[in-house]
Amino acid sequence: MVNREYLAMLGNKSVIRELSEYATARGKEIGYENVFDFSLGNPSVPAPDSYRDISIRLLQEEEPLKLHGYNPTMGDPRVKQMVAETLNKRFGMNYEAGHIFPTSGAAGAIAHALRCVTEPGEEVMVFAPYFSEYDPYIKGTGADIRVVAAKTDDFQINFEAAETVFSEKTAAVLINTPNNPSGAVYTEETLTRLAEVLTEKSAQYGHTIFLISDEPYREIVFDGKKQAYPAKFYPHTLTCYSYSKSLSVPGERVGYVAVSPDCEQADKMVAMMGQISRGLGHNCPSSLPMLAAAYCGDETSDLSVYETNMNLLYDTFKELGFTVPRPGGTFYIMPKALEDDAVAFCKKALKYDLVFVPGDGFHARGFFRVAYCVDTEKVERSLPAIRRFVETEYPNR
Amino acid sequence: MVNREYLAMLGNKSVIRELSEYATARGKEIGYENVFDFSLGNPSVPAPDSYRDISIRLLQEEEPLKLHGYNPTMGDPRVKQMVAETLNKRFGMNYEAGHIFPTSGAAGAIAHALRCVTEPGEEVMVFAPYFSEYDPYIKGTGADIRVVAAKTDDFQINFEAAETVFSEKTAAVLINTPNNPSGAVYTEETLTRLAEVLTEKSAQYGHTIFLISDEPYREIVFDGKKQAYPAKFYPHTLTCYSYSKSLSVPGERVGYVAVSPDCEQADKMVAMMGQISRGLGHNCPSSLPMLAAAYCGDETSDLSVYETNMNLLYDTFKELGFTVPRPGGTFYIMPKALEDDAVAFCKKALKYDLVFVPGDGFHARGFFRVAYCVDTEKVERSLPAIRRFVETEYPNR
Repeated sequence: MVNREYLAMLGNKSVIRELSEYATARGKEIGYENVFDFSLGNPSVPAPDSYRDISIRLLQEEEPLKLHGYNPTMGDPRVKQMVAETLNKRFGMNYEAGHIFPTSGAAGAIAHALRCVTEPGEEVMVFAPYFSEYDPYIKGTGADIRVVAAKTDDFQINFEAAETVFSEKTAAVLINTPNNPSGAVYTEETLTRLAEVLTEKSAQYGHTIFLISDEPYREIVFDGKKQAYPAKFYPHTLTCYSYSKSLSVPGERVGYVAVSPDCEQADKMVAMMGQISRGLGHNCPSSLPMLAAAYCGDETSDLSVYETNMNLLYDTFKELGFTVPRPGGTFYIMPKALEDDAVAFCKKALKYDLVFVPGDGFHARGFFRVAYCVDTEKVERSLPAIRRFVETEYPNR
Repeated sequence: MVNREYLAMLGNKSVIRELSEYATARGKEIGYENVFDFSLGNPSVPAPDSYRDISIRLLQEEEPLKLHGYNPTMGDPRVKQMVAETLNKRFGMNYEAGHIFPTSGAAGAIAHALRCVTEPGEEVMVFAPYFSEYDPYIKGTGADIRVVAAKTDDFQINFEAAETVFSEKTAAVLINTPNNPSGAVYTEETLTRLAEVLTEKSAQYGHTIFLISDEPYREIVFDGKKQAYPAKFYPHTLTCYSYSKSLSVPGERVGYVAVSPDCEQADKMVAMMGQISRGLGHNCPSSLPMLAAAYCGDETSDLSVYETNMNLLYDTFKELGFTVPRPGGTFYIMPKALEDDAVAFCKKALKYDLVFVPGDGFHARGFFRVAYCVDTEKVERSLPAIRRFVETEYPNR
């Protein structure tokens, strides 16, 4: 017999995927350029030329046996060194190569980080709204997910609600800033308060509560600002990164965990991840893409289009009377729907070829996510459709 | 607190790794070219030029957003189609793209295949000698590993011993042919008998016992022969493949699971693997390496060196009086040690700068593994050292 649990999961189609498939099908009828598909978080700007140039140079100049050979269980030493140096320079950290564990994207990073600092039956706290794949990530470790309600005025952390969710079983807190789906960028105040709370709760329960910080959107921050680096605020931090968004290479599956040198058991964590890999069938990210990404250092694709798109959409939503926190980064915005049922709201939007995702799957009922990683020209063309949708369907808003 | 289980695993250093580290350290003293390091199964011939050329062409000609973009959960349709066509042509199968699940190497393939067809508490049968990483692979699923004793005269399957290991909890049988560590190539007779036994036991227990066939060495077969394709013999077969050995790209982590179209639930398996990926943090292999490998089709590196090396070593071992089944493929040979304790035997060999791996870790006590994926010139230089070792330490063998 096949595994019944996984078999049963086949029924559960993700809403995002369903909407994206609808958009593709509709695109075949009216031309995909006429479908305002804001459903998927797929980068819309190409990788920088240097990513391609470095890849080609490595293929041409490195000995194939070395370039394509097995990596040590704990990762390519060159990659680890380059990542540590870049992070130290940018964020004033003091990582050594031994604190860096290269992974298959952020998904791989979170899978390893979670298993390092939790045991089955313990709890991992997340703050709504959150990326819905955190559910299988956490469930896969045997730990339980505990959700803190959203602070819907600005999508920073709802510390009051968190107070009721902490328990002695809390092993780790998983944050994501800049945030998918809200676009919120956690402020220094938020991160300072979070560190205070974690320190206090760790003392109260007699064990360290670890912070897992998922940061694939770290480089997409607007208004000339920077994302404050969470590991600077709290010592027991495992930083999970992916190059998917900064270099627009999500299919290449490259990222890392950086274990703060001040973290409990910092000197053992990466070796533990090496052991964890064995059971997961992970065995390091692919050599060439990982090496090319690491050589790119802190270079990125031209990410400015996302800010342009955000401003166009934010201004339009505001003008139309939406309640909508202004995103500080990412390529998402999360306005409040114009009726309580965001699913019904998004269904109506489809009539105008506008594909939005209801916030329910992100634990943000009544809100909807707009992923504006699309060409600006398309965003501009979508604005009249948004206006028509809202004015027709919600004339008395 | 960090996870205690993984923390405790840090003590368990693999014997192979320990020996390999010894060889590296010794190499620093006397020059690595003078250490006859037969410890690691790392390909010694470069990737074919076409792998590099295809990679460069893809980087130069494909749209970066498409080339490096997210793959669908169940894998790149182009890759799936190419793999299906190649397997159909070579082995007379009738796979469709939907039966292929691209993975991060064979480790990823086995991790997914095992989870598809087992539930925690069930049993997976393996035949000694076997690749020691099968232990964490199987343990990671929650199933139990059950080992069938080796048939040491030829390292085919010991069906008599298997009879005592089958139980109603047997969910799957995991085979590896050509075999690491023995070099055995399962014959048509072995595979026919295996299919008969699995069919009989499935009927007896009232549930299908699945066959997971791990085939990274499929292309390294000697004497002009071919490995018979296990899925042709038994319908309920999940074939796990890696390009690591055939293309010498183990660091790129590319492979696949091919679900036999005649397998129970064949139409659901790949979708289940898509669900399994979510908990493992896997999310498809890297785009560029996977695509390049698939475009290589059934091309391989020049693998002939392994046969040359095998013959040199086999003849020498035979001449020196060893009991040693002649390998049919791979880059391993597994002679019987000249004393009962293979660990003691391998320790003595180190004095002659010969690095062999005791068979104990492969469940083949009293034997030792020689990995001859090294330059032929080095194999030739090792022969006098082997002779001196044996004649000095075991004069009365």
